[in-house]
Amino acid sequence: MSTVRKFRDFGWEDVPVLAYKEGGPYKGVTRQVLFEGEESLPAQWRYFEVEPGGHSTLERHAHIHYVLILRGRGRCLVGEDISDIAEHDLIEVPSLKWHQFRAAEDAPLGFLCLVSATRDRPQLPAAEDLAELSRSRAVADFVRP
Amino acid sequence: MSTVRKFRDFGWEDVPVLAYKEGGPYKGVTRQVLFEGEESLPAQWRYFEVEPGGHSTLERHAHIHYVLILRGRGRCLVGEDISDIAEHDLIEVPSLKWHQFRAAEDAPLGFLCLVSATRDRPQLPAAEDLAELSRSRAVADFVRP
Repeated sequence: MSTVRKFRDFGWEDVPVLAYKEGGPYKGVTRQVLFEGEESLPAQWRYFEVEPGGHSTLERHAHIHYVLILRGRGRCLVGEDISDIAEHDLIEVPSLKWHQFRAAEDAPLGFLCLVSATRDRPQLPAAEDLAELSRSRAVADFVRP
Repeated sequence: MSTVRKFRDFGWEDVPVLAYKEGGPYKGVTRQVLFEGEESLPAQWRYFEVEPGGHSTLERHAHIHYVLILRGRGRCLVGEDISDIAEHDLIEVPSLKWHQFRAAEDAPLGFLCLVSATRDRPQLPAAEDLAELSRSRAVADFVRP
């Protein structure tokens, strides 16, 4: 592989555009693995892009996320906080916090997301989790289970 | 700390702008630590910015770097490869390869750089390393020891 993998139109040389995930509800999301992680740096660095009006899966897991928005804008839920997000904002998703990213209706939302190379599988909300989340009207309106 | 740390003018809320490093020759470089890394994700995610005409330290180390250019353009040396680099290009710096980043004369060069939270100290080139590097005329012209 060459030293530099050139960027073009939110894609990169030698980086395939993948389905966001297998299983789990979501709408209009792609995944690109920028750096796979290796023994001496066991962190996988990914780029996700949510199309306008789309959203990632509402989920939680023990592993944490470090996120930097690279393109566009939208909103995110982390725990019970709903925030507007735009280019280059930073978000940390703590362990076991429910989270979901939604693109604006008129803009994509592309973000870098760092995770440990070894990590647990995401959990989807059960009916009682959704009931708990929906005690906040704002959260109930935001989530796309 | 709030869920989202907002971006403004290549700075972030609650992220101080630091000196690039203590010791080691360099010109016009700042450092910001975006994510400190913790036990479950032991990777430190930094943003470096090189002012127009500036450069990072010519160095090597056992630990690897994952880099994504966030702003501007310039050139980098990795091993004996000199490459033009611009926004969102990806660069992997392998273990023990000499490397240096230089901003263009008329543009800054800002880049995200991921490292392991535990890592060895950079080595500076000795006279014999510079002689070895300078066997390539292009490298000799590029480096700023």
